[in-house]
Amino acid sequence: MTEQTALKREFKVVGTRPLRPDGIDKVTGRAKFGADANAPGMLYGLILRSPHAHARIKSIDTSKAEKLQGVKAVVTRDDFKRPDRADLIDIWINVMARDKALYDGHAVAAVAATSKAVAREALRLIKVKYEVLPHVIDVDEAMKPDAPILHPDMRTEGVEPKPKKASNVAHRYEFGHGNIEKGFAEADIVIERSFKTEASHQGYIEPHACLASVGPDGQGDLWCCTQGHFMVRNACAGLLGIDVAKLRVTASEIGGGFGGKTTVFIEPVALALSRKANRPVKLVMSRNEVFRATGPTSSSSIDVKIGVKRNGRMTAARAELRYQGGAFSGSPVEFGAMTSFACYDLPNVQTIGHDVVTNRPKQVAYRAPGAPMAAFAVESVVDELAKKVGMNPLEFRLLNAARQGTKSSYGPTFGPIGLEATLERAKTHGHYSAPLGPNQGRGVACGFWFNFGGNTCVSLNIGEDGTVALTEGNPDIGGSRASLTMMAAEELGIPYEKVRTVIADTGALGYNEVTDGSRVTFAAGLATIKAARDAIKKMCGRAAKIWDIPEEAVVWENGHAKPAGPNAGTFKPLSLAELAAKASATGGPIAGHFEVNADGAGVSFATHMVDVEVDPDTGRVTVLRYTVFQDAGKAVHPSYVEGQFQGGAAQGVGWALNEEYVYGKDGRLQNPGFLDYRIPVASDLPMIDTVILEIPNPGHPYGVRGVGETSIVPPLAAIANAVSAAAGVRLTHLPMSPPRILKALMDHQRG
Amino acid sequence: MTEQTALKREFKVVGTRPLRPDGIDKVTGRAKFGADANAPGMLYGLILRSPHAHARIKSIDTSKAEKLQGVKAVVTRDDFKRPDRADLIDIWINVMARDKALYDGHAVAAVAATSKAVAREALRLIKVKYEVLPHVIDVDEAMKPDAPILHPDMRTEGVEPKPKKASNVAHRYEFGHGNIEKGFAEADIVIERSFKTEASHQGYIEPHACLASVGPDGQGDLWCCTQGHFMVRNACAGLLGIDVAKLRVTASEIGGGFGGKTTVFIEPVALALSRKANRPVKLVMSRNEVFRATGPTSSSSIDVKIGVKRNGRMTAARAELRYQGGAFSGSPVEFGAMTSFACYDLPNVQTIGHDVVTNRPKQVAYRAPGAPMAAFAVESVVDELAKKVGMNPLEFRLLNAARQGTKSSYGPTFGPIGLEATLERAKTHGHYSAPLGPNQGRGVACGFWFNFGGNTCVSLNIGEDGTVALTEGNPDIGGSRASLTMMAAEELGIPYEKVRTVIADTGALGYNEVTDGSRVTFAAGLATIKAARDAIKKMCGRAAKIWDIPEEAVVWENGHAKPAGPNAGTFKPLSLAELAAKASATGGPIAGHFEVNADGAGVSFATHMVDVEVDPDTGRVTVLRYTVFQDAGKAVHPSYVEGQFQGGAAQGVGWALNEEYVYGKDGRLQNPGFLDYRIPVASDLPMIDTVILEIPNPGHPYGVRGVGETSIVPPLAAIANAVSAAAGVRLTHLPMSPPRILKALMDHQRG
Repeated sequence: MTEQTALKREFKVVGTRPLRPDGIDKVTGRAKFGADANAPGMLYGLILRSPHAHARIKSIDTSKAEKLQGVKAVVTRDDFKRPDRADLIDIWINVMARDKALYDGHAVAAVAATSKAVAREALRLIKVKYEVLPHVIDVDEAMKPDAPILHPDMRTEGVEPKPKKASNVAHRYEFGHGNIEKGFAEADIVIERSFKTEASHQGYIEPHACLASVGPDGQGDLWCCTQGHFMVRNACAGLLGIDVAKLRVTASEIGGGFGGKTTVFIEPVALALSRKANRPVKLVMSRNEVFRATGPTSSSSIDVKIGVKRNGRMTAARAELRYQGGAFSGSPVEFGAMTSFACYDLPNVQTIGHDVVTNRPKQVAYRAPGAPMAAFAVESVVDELAKKVGMNPLEFRLLNAARQGTKSSYGPTFGPIGLEATLERAKTHGHYSAPLGPNQGRGVACGFWFNFGGNTCVSLNIGEDGTVALTEGNPDIGGSRASLTMMAAEELGIPYEKVRTVIADTGALGYNEVTDGSRVTFAAGLATIKAARDAIKKMCGRAAKIWDIPEEAVVWENGHAKPAGPNAGTFKPLSLAELAAKASATGGPIAGHFEVNADGAGVSFATHMVDVEVDPDTGRVTVLRYTVFQDAGKAVHPSYVEGQFQGGAAQGVGWALNEEYVYGKDGRLQNPGFLDYRIPVASDLPMIDTVILEIPNPGHPYGVRGVGETSIVPPLAAIANAVSAAAGVRLTHLPMSPPRILKALMDHQRG
Repeated sequence: MTEQTALKREFKVVGTRPLRPDGIDKVTGRAKFGADANAPGMLYGLILRSPHAHARIKSIDTSKAEKLQGVKAVVTRDDFKRPDRADLIDIWINVMARDKALYDGHAVAAVAATSKAVAREALRLIKVKYEVLPHVIDVDEAMKPDAPILHPDMRTEGVEPKPKKASNVAHRYEFGHGNIEKGFAEADIVIERSFKTEASHQGYIEPHACLASVGPDGQGDLWCCTQGHFMVRNACAGLLGIDVAKLRVTASEIGGGFGGKTTVFIEPVALALSRKANRPVKLVMSRNEVFRATGPTSSSSIDVKIGVKRNGRMTAARAELRYQGGAFSGSPVEFGAMTSFACYDLPNVQTIGHDVVTNRPKQVAYRAPGAPMAAFAVESVVDELAKKVGMNPLEFRLLNAARQGTKSSYGPTFGPIGLEATLERAKTHGHYSAPLGPNQGRGVACGFWFNFGGNTCVSLNIGEDGTVALTEGNPDIGGSRASLTMMAAEELGIPYEKVRTVIADTGALGYNEVTDGSRVTFAAGLATIKAARDAIKKMCGRAAKIWDIPEEAVVWENGHAKPAGPNAGTFKPLSLAELAAKASATGGPIAGHFEVNADGAGVSFATHMVDVEVDPDTGRVTVLRYTVFQDAGKAVHPSYVEGQFQGGAAQGVGWALNEEYVYGKDGRLQNPGFLDYRIPVASDLPMIDTVILEIPNPGHPYGVRGVGETSIVPPLAAIANAVSAAAGVRLTHLPMSPPRILKALMDHQRG
């Protein structure tokens, strides 16, 4: 269901629900994913990984492996020079361990051989001498003064004076405004709670895979599944010390990413093996490797304190967030701190974030990175406060909601935003008044995401038959081929079916940022519209040439160039296809181009509502009903928007209820597989209802905001609020798996 | 050796001889050619071909083949609907025979199966009933009134009134000016001779190969070796009835083309099989198929008549050319008629061309299509005339040479051209005065080619590290990656090594004409320079933004933006790399684009000189010494230019001395393989010396003309003149193979 709020433009294509261009390929198996590329003379790569959570690597003896028949290259830390780019240092250490293995699964060596069997045998022949060191897994443990230190040179950034002592805290962030002490002093009721969340994996079905081929001249080609092949190109070029323009990266179809494919892991290793062997090298991760060595999101520990007047108005809010980023700095705690209170209009607010390293794999972005756990903590306290002041949770949130003109908790003042609209719509929705049974509870929660813009390049070529090839540079993880095709067709005034969108390799376009932050439909959409306008301008020029009238006397309407104005004369309008057919005779092929560092991304808000039933005997939670209310700005392809809403909620259900990295005392991951790491399957989920609201983003020609991230922000809190209502006890530690719920129930009964 | 005549611009990169960017890939085997692509689930295609030169296809029974285990698709004429595009009708009939098989090797059916063995067995199971018809192979035979008629609806075009009777003459062309009768009447000496040449194949080493994958939605991908993947896209889209934008074609590296890969043969068949099977299909031709079913150039029959005054000045010239185009119209006789007398300044000239069909494979362009055989005939008569008037052949040609202001025999008036320069240089070259031994002879001949322009699109993206990705759409058959890289580097003012040129697939650029007609270095070079200037303009804009001065106050010099002019202020110049690093902050990625239908191609001329020895006992000809003098306009990469000169001469040697399609009385090709069709090998050739002359083409910013075609125009005639001088008897039928020479010697002795 799409509910349009205010959009001036009448759309013909945008807002409809055409077939997705990649659909048939994907259901018939024709689509080529990361592991589907092969090359003549190809070798198979495998990576040897540390079995220790923290260990000094005293020596690596590859001599026996190198002598094995069929082994064509072995690489270790010695094959990766320190890169010039400072931002690549952590990646450099992560893709191949240097003096220490920093987590269970850290790459230590790699081989390329003529078969997988030979490669496996070669791994067995590599002898690594480790000196095992004490390790730390938990974020709070890692912050203790006597914790094992991962990086002896790490000094906390963002504190004054700069500490002299090494610690596992990489950064401290602080956001806010007003006077927090004064605010709490004004409050009638103050609630303060502590929360924990566990690391969860993005859970994409397709493991990382690539095919690398690079010559001794440094010219190379790389095929891989990634959310951003331009990022892969630049990172790999930096790590291998070759020119950016020399490496051509092609993105395969992608079997899920959700943020997890926004960096490089195996790609530089495959390139290094290929360069050494002078042969193409294919590297495909096993599921075990995906869990042990690619990024889950951070586990977290969060304190939230909110004060309200008796009338429900918030006077102050404070959060302190501790996120572990795995073995390297870069947890999304900054985003967590920025988004914590973004839903609220607060006179006094402070958020503090600590970015902490532990002996875990380097965390990687996971859908709205850092925001869901912050929302879980904040929205849990908000839920408690609403009860305390005796307001229904939607009214309580409406009273305190951020709106146009609100100074956000992270700095900027909001323009037109849709939080109130989602809350108002939730109030009137049938879900909110539906009856509940025994052991059932309803929860609501709000969520926020910035949405990104960034560097984006698009080309659009008008074919000789009037069909259009749109060339963009962002891997399609959520339907961007469809939405960009629609925007191109809309702007050009031709049917959707006449445009084919192709994701170009890095040789064909300028830099495109990674497909993340819900940026693509906004930024690549904006670039597509502008590129179409560039082509339209040229087509009007061709019509003017044909008619021998001034260019200014030609306008574009409904896919046709038309004469307009007093001196234009009367000519039969020329369609895009007619102009395309005449292109060669009027000057050559017609194209539109646009390169931009897009700003003007519109923030978005959502309110989620969920009913659950808690089995008091087993602690099992059944999700009964779920409704998402979210502002899409403009829903270009409503089915995809709904899919994003549903997907975010579904992933949130898993994170809230079951997903968790389980570590042994030895610091080794105990559940590196989908049998023991439980993501929701269809039978775990109800149909997730969606309500699309459309509050146009003034920064986009069609009003588009991103939609993919916001939808995962509220579920953790909404489900926690529902579980708390159903169980009669508040759960403050995710996931709310049966053992944890049972323990909470028993603790509660014991009083 | 490069001899510069007149170029104002000082070049830094252009004119040097850097390493070719594709060199290492090609010598180490990393380069991927047509047969080097694979896809998961791929099937193997094979084509059943007619064993008859001319036969009615009464029925095709594929039922047994379809039932064979592992066969996934069988296609026949029934799977190819008549295309809408009139220009595709012949190709439609050629890729799959319809009512008749028109030549030995004509495709009749095709299969796709899980293995080549199964596909082979399936071909055996297809039962085709033929009614064998009379056939005609020779061009003169085909023009006789009682010749078997290939196409009952063929009426000669270009004659008035339009004939009522069907014939094998598809077109008649006529070019010329003046009064030919009057011209011959003014002559003191008139020589008229008749000549024949045999069909020769382009002799590329790589057979045609492709990998096709198309879904039921008509979206497809095609990998193939071709000289023009945009042409392949448009032709296949037309033949399969799908939108141009839906088909994405990627050009592999190409193992030779020389004009032979400027059309489609197996590609539409592979796509039809893929669409039917819904699986990727690989189709690779055998050498036998290449010879029997792809295009050699026309065999020809030519009459030439030239009249001169006693002082050597030509008064009139006439040529009548009869070229067979194989089973379809489209022999290059029009080009033959246009180029015949292009080297001469003639007051009265007439050329007539007949385009004739025979029961042979459809002829396809071969390097300067149609011109070498015309030059062979004309330059042979010119050689005789020079002797007759007692002038040395260079002086005789200089006396009659076309120069700036000459009205050409095909219409246009020449601008600045280089024919005289090549003749003058030949006169002073050591080769011309070197002594000859017994049975040795020296021949000279001139040649001409138009050089093409046409639709061309280029994009150029400035990488974040200041390296540049140049995206062009022409398969690199002769070093265009190097020459375009050089022109981009020259214009941008950066080193050659900082640019990588990539040949984009059809999804990434607008239409690019086929790599032919010696168009690429000219047209794509022009587009590259213009795209670089577009990028430079943007970089100057970024510098202006950084310095906060007007855009007009910034100039580009030596790879740097510099303030210039009275109000510019003083700022440190910003290099391309510095501007690239700031691109994101100053507005986004920087690119340059250019789309054009390029005109202004510069015609080019060459003079070749060759010494041969004829063994009077065996008739074997040894090429002793060979020198090419040719105007390159501007030699961008002199080594490549020399390579083109040498390659053209080498192919000419083969055509002149040995290469020939041999047909049996049954109309079947008897030598479909390199063992029996003899192309020159290294031991057949001397080092071919080259002299590059540079008479700038005013239609190109750097003065570039094409060089690839002109170099094959003079060799046939030059060698014939040399052989005639050595043997003492004029050879008028190519190839001058030992049996033909022996026969000529014996006929001569017999008197």
